[in-house]
Amino acid sequence: MHFFSDNATPVCPQVMAAIAAADRADRGYDGDAWSARLDSAFSDLFAAPVRALWVATGTAANSIALACLCPPYGGILCHEESHIAVDECGAPGFYTHGATLMPLPGKGAKLAPATLIDRLKAIRPDVHQIPARAISITQATEYGLVYTPHEVAAIGQVARDHGLGLHMDGARFANAMAHLGCHPGDVSWRAGVDILTFGCVKNGGMVGEALLFFGPDADARAAEAARWRKRGGHLLSKGRYLAAQILALIEDGLWLDNGRAANAAATMLAQLAPERLLHPVQTNELFLHLSAPEAAALRAQGFDFYDWGEDAARLVTNWAQDAASIQPLADALKALQ
Amino acid sequence: MHFFSDNATPVCPQVMAAIAAADRADRGYDGDAWSARLDSAFSDLFAAPVRALWVATGTAANSIALACLCPPYGGILCHEESHIAVDECGAPGFYTHGATLMPLPGKGAKLAPATLIDRLKAIRPDVHQIPARAISITQATEYGLVYTPHEVAAIGQVARDHGLGLHMDGARFANAMAHLGCHPGDVSWRAGVDILTFGCVKNGGMVGEALLFFGPDADARAAEAARWRKRGGHLLSKGRYLAAQILALIEDGLWLDNGRAANAAATMLAQLAPERLLHPVQTNELFLHLSAPEAAALRAQGFDFYDWGEDAARLVTNWAQDAASIQPLADALKALQ
Amino acid sequence: MHFFSDNATPVCPQVMAAIAAADRADRGYDGDAWSARLDSAFSDLFAAPVRALWVATGTAANSIALACLCPPYGGILCHEESHIAVDECGAPGFYTHGATLMPLPGKGAKLAPATLIDRLKAIRPDVHQIPARAISITQATEYGLVYTPHEVAAIGQVARDHGLGLHMDGARFANAMAHLGCHPGDVSWRAGVDILTFGCVKNGGMVGEALLFFGPDADARAAEAARWRKRGGHLLSKGRYLAAQILALIEDGLWLDNGRAANAAATMLAQLAPERLLHPVQTNELFLHLSAPEAAALRAQGFDFYDWGEDAARLVTNWAQDAASIQPLADALKALQ
Amino acid sequence: MHFFSDNATPVCPQVMAAIAAADRADRGYDGDAWSARLDSAFSDLFAAPVRALWVATGTAANSIALACLCPPYGGILCHEESHIAVDECGAPGFYTHGATLMPLPGKGAKLAPATLIDRLKAIRPDVHQIPARAISITQATEYGLVYTPHEVAAIGQVARDHGLGLHMDGARFANAMAHLGCHPGDVSWRAGVDILTFGCVKNGGMVGEALLFFGPDADARAAEAARWRKRGGHLLSKGRYLAAQILALIEDGLWLDNGRAANAAATMLAQLAPERLLHPVQTNELFLHLSAPEAAALRAQGFDFYDWGEDAARLVTNWAQDAASIQPLADALKALQ
Repeated sequence: MHFFSDNATPVCPQVMAAIAAADRADRGYDGDAWSARLDSAFSDLFAAPVRALWVATGTAANSIALACLCPPYGGILCHEESHIAVDECGAPGFYTHGATLMPLPGKGAKLAPATLIDRLKAIRPDVHQIPARAISITQATEYGLVYTPHEVAAIGQVARDHGLGLHMDGARFANAMAHLGCHPGDVSWRAGVDILTFGCVKNGGMVGEALLFFGPDADARAAEAARWRKRGGHLLSKGRYLAAQILALIEDGLWLDNGRAANAAATMLAQLAPERLLHPVQTNELFLHLSAPEAAALRAQGFDFYDWGEDAARLVTNWAQDAASIQPLADALKALQ
Repeated sequence: MHFFSDNATPVCPQVMAAIAAADRADRGYDGDAWSARLDSAFSDLFAAPVRALWVATGTAANSIALACLCPPYGGILCHEESHIAVDECGAPGFYTHGATLMPLPGKGAKLAPATLIDRLKAIRPDVHQIPARAISITQATEYGLVYTPHEVAAIGQVARDHGLGLHMDGARFANAMAHLGCHPGDVSWRAGVDILTFGCVKNGGMVGEALLFFGPDADARAAEAARWRKRGGHLLSKGRYLAAQILALIEDGLWLDNGRAANAAATMLAQLAPERLLHPVQTNELFLHLSAPEAAALRAQGFDFYDWGEDAARLVTNWAQDAASIQPLADALKALQ
Repeated sequence: MHFFSDNATPVCPQVMAAIAAADRADRGYDGDAWSARLDSAFSDLFAAPVRALWVATGTAANSIALACLCPPYGGILCHEESHIAVDECGAPGFYTHGATLMPLPGKGAKLAPATLIDRLKAIRPDVHQIPARAISITQATEYGLVYTPHEVAAIGQVARDHGLGLHMDGARFANAMAHLGCHPGDVSWRAGVDILTFGCVKNGGMVGEALLFFGPDADARAAEAARWRKRGGHLLSKGRYLAAQILALIEDGLWLDNGRAANAAATMLAQLAPERLLHPVQTNELFLHLSAPEAAALRAQGFDFYDWGEDAARLVTNWAQDAASIQPLADALKALQ
Repeated sequence: MHFFSDNATPVCPQVMAAIAAADRADRGYDGDAWSARLDSAFSDLFAAPVRALWVATGTAANSIALACLCPPYGGILCHEESHIAVDECGAPGFYTHGATLMPLPGKGAKLAPATLIDRLKAIRPDVHQIPARAISITQATEYGLVYTPHEVAAIGQVARDHGLGLHMDGARFANAMAHLGCHPGDVSWRAGVDILTFGCVKNGGMVGEALLFFGPDADARAAEAARWRKRGGHLLSKGRYLAAQILALIEDGLWLDNGRAANAAATMLAQLAPERLLHPVQTNELFLHLSAPEAAALRAQGFDFYDWGEDAARLVTNWAQDAASIQPLADALKALQ
């Protein structure tokens, strides 16, 4: 049983059905009927004007977002364990043509306003130093923790005060929203987020993530992003198959249902071994103390997961799981005690 | 009825079935069982050692290929009407970090060895001028014409003589092979092609093209390409769905069947209006003299296609068509006479 | 005797004196007293507000100018024989992060408005094609020909009509102005030029060219350019030595005197062999019919120059020459008749 | 009196004389007689085959060096306070097309082998993470400290063990050598350095630094570097004036004399206030505890220097100073006690 990533999960049936329904002739690229509906569907979901573009991956979505916010000579404040800093082989540097990530510490991979402000103060405003131009935060973080609306708004305020753009990597935005229970606008445009990577693949999709632009610059930035998308090779010729997946997830609340299911599975597992938890479990990731023999024992029973440094492991649950399906792992964890 | 692009066509049923068959949990990215089979499947098809990577689009495939062959200060000889020069918004310049396309003329969008040699001779070898480092040709060309094995080999010889890499954009490689009837190795590695963009989407796929590396540098170039793929955001997290499509096309000859079907439809239409043809019809594209009123008349009957300058039109047939399905257009064309 | 380039010439004495005068301690980079005077000195010269930056070379000046006018996905209309297209090893592509030069024909390396307009019309406005964003012209051209104020203004109008920036490569701006006899503003900001590479080295300088910004966007573009200058390694730590050279040339009209001297030498030579001229001589370059034996004969007498294709040669005169100093060449040319 | 940077110092007389001697006609770019002598002059100095290129600045030299050692997707291990990380506005990212600096801690801005090895161990070898490809160290460091031959060799060993290139930023190489008293080869090629930025401007030059390539890859890397130099706009058209400066410094030991003079001045000042020193003084930089009132008092007497955070200052001495010329500052420092 795979617990090493939500990427390992199959596509959710409603998304598969949507792909089948889109399997007919239409205009190429994003000239089709499904792609045409994205802006309004996301505007409805966020209760604000949204410009939406699909791209093939979250790496592309994050990088294109940053290219819209930061010039090649600029810097991007981010967490030192963020996906853009650690796991994208420099993709943001590629799409921004050389902008510099400015990695910062923070518990649970969350950035605090004070940390941002201190870093900004340390930058001399002359041409010798790289000026910060954007902040990127991850919702939920790499440790599955969630920024509250208030926390995002505080970072949004730092961004505004310093003339920086604010990007949110929402690879697990659905999981974060399932945890928060608030309106999606509350942790995005209302809190000062300019561009959101709205994750779909981890949440039951096959291919395709949405890149969302909010606020008065949305049109101009989306036009720029459309150029980066083309140049990056992300303007797929049969885009309707991507748009259909995204619409299937968002138009009837499936995205949130899937996020809730994944979170519930993680919570159930967490409750079995609270003393092992390295971080609180707010979404669908568990970071557990696990000795090498314990890890080996679990693997011997067919459970797959990442080692996370020494004597620790990361387990990720997904939309397809429920109490029954995680029972074998629950039993195995209990047996370790 | 859509004749404006093979991109407008649905996904072919066998590919759809392969996607469904791949819809189960497996390792993320390219760690899955389907991706693991690509190298050997293509090696079998080409009767030579092949390294194969999937990427989301042909634009990405072409650009990554060129980035493996040409440094930022180098030049790439190509046809002035090639897709990389005209329709990719500078993507090759993006992935190569600024390499320069060197567009050349040639009938039917085909490059001739003499044209290449003349251009190469005109480059001074000092540091002020951009040195050519690669040649890129398109098989079939933007006008649907096909390079014979002999013609490719002659260009391959120019490449070798001048220390250049040779890339082939095979967005319609299946159509070209259906026309040629030879072994796919004859117009690729045996003729000096280093990297081939093996097109799948126009040939019945949904998402995903294959990038193939031949020859002694294949391993090193594929390793570089894997980095560009990641940095470009083309290492999809559920790559098994792409690999499955590609395997479905190539493992049982479906790619060639689909190419033949599309070509046959074009040939049938061409025979109805030979005097209108602007180029010989060798694959699945027809370029026709068509006056504005004639074009309007066809469109009024529901046929869709591109205008190609003044008094001309491009019609593209596809894998899903047969004699019956193109009959309405055939009748309409005859009625124009 | 060197006639192959004005780069071969020594530094003019007044510039050397200015360097010596600047040889004392001052703030580093552009924090010195000389650099501080550049804006006002150029504003006086052009009778308009000017922002001025020194950089080490014309290649850097041209490239940084284009980076201020054109995004990575944009195109730059230029002459197919322009220095930026032919002799800078793709430097504009480096500084613009991949923008595409769009080379155009034109007699004497001059661009005509109609040629520009035709090329612009051929660009589809979709994301697949590279949108033009700038025009670059050379004053005087690579063949020593001069755009009149009227001609520049006509190109400026094309730029304005299409929302394009206009750059002028003035490597030999002094020679052009010496020929025109008009106010320098007439062929620059009054005619719609946004950024001018104001050449100094060919005109008697040692190191350093000036990059001039005109118009309402001057401040914003100069701020961007200051970043490219730093990132390109062109913010020299002892910038006062560059600023002093530039001021020496422009503050007392030396630049124009030097331009006149060089032009006069070329005119004198041209009059000796009018039937050999491939282009009219307006500045300091002569393009002559010269058979291989004739070229060899001249070289045997110690005259150095470039071959310019078959049976032709380029000779360049410079600020240090007068009637007496070119007499040996004049005699040699006469002897060829 | 300027103590804020050795950049503030005038050009040393012998260099000025060399410039005057080079002030005659010769071939442009690097085709002149002075540039032609660089390889052999540096080969003599380092007692090994050296390929040498001049460029306008240290920023360009460092960046081009790194572009020769590290691909766009690679990482460069460096100190977190190194000039390339802190004061070049991302120039290494520009020339490398997006490579990532990997900043590391270390006392006195020196890197230790163990720190490098730990960082290298933390990099997963998959395509998601940036692979280290180069190490860059500074000799003398930003705090004026010097790596011994043994220390450089230990880092060279780490580089070799991990397949990394080794760059040395020698903006103050002369000062370091004056301190060490060993052969320049001992801290460069013999210790595993592949490319050395050999600083000239801080050491008495006007414009121009030397980029030196050692070892079996020297020719290939120098050929690459010549392309980056041209594309970066650093192939100055009157290169003889740069080459002449560099030769004047190295051919008769002037570089070392100048380094010694600057170091001696710093040492004299250091001995006056040993209790104020934040770092040992090995070269020409002093980092002093200095309260705000003390700093103000010194400035009121006409001494100029950088504040270095709170209650600290950086003072830099230079080649032009001797006991007499620093006496006023010595007196002022003593008066503070």
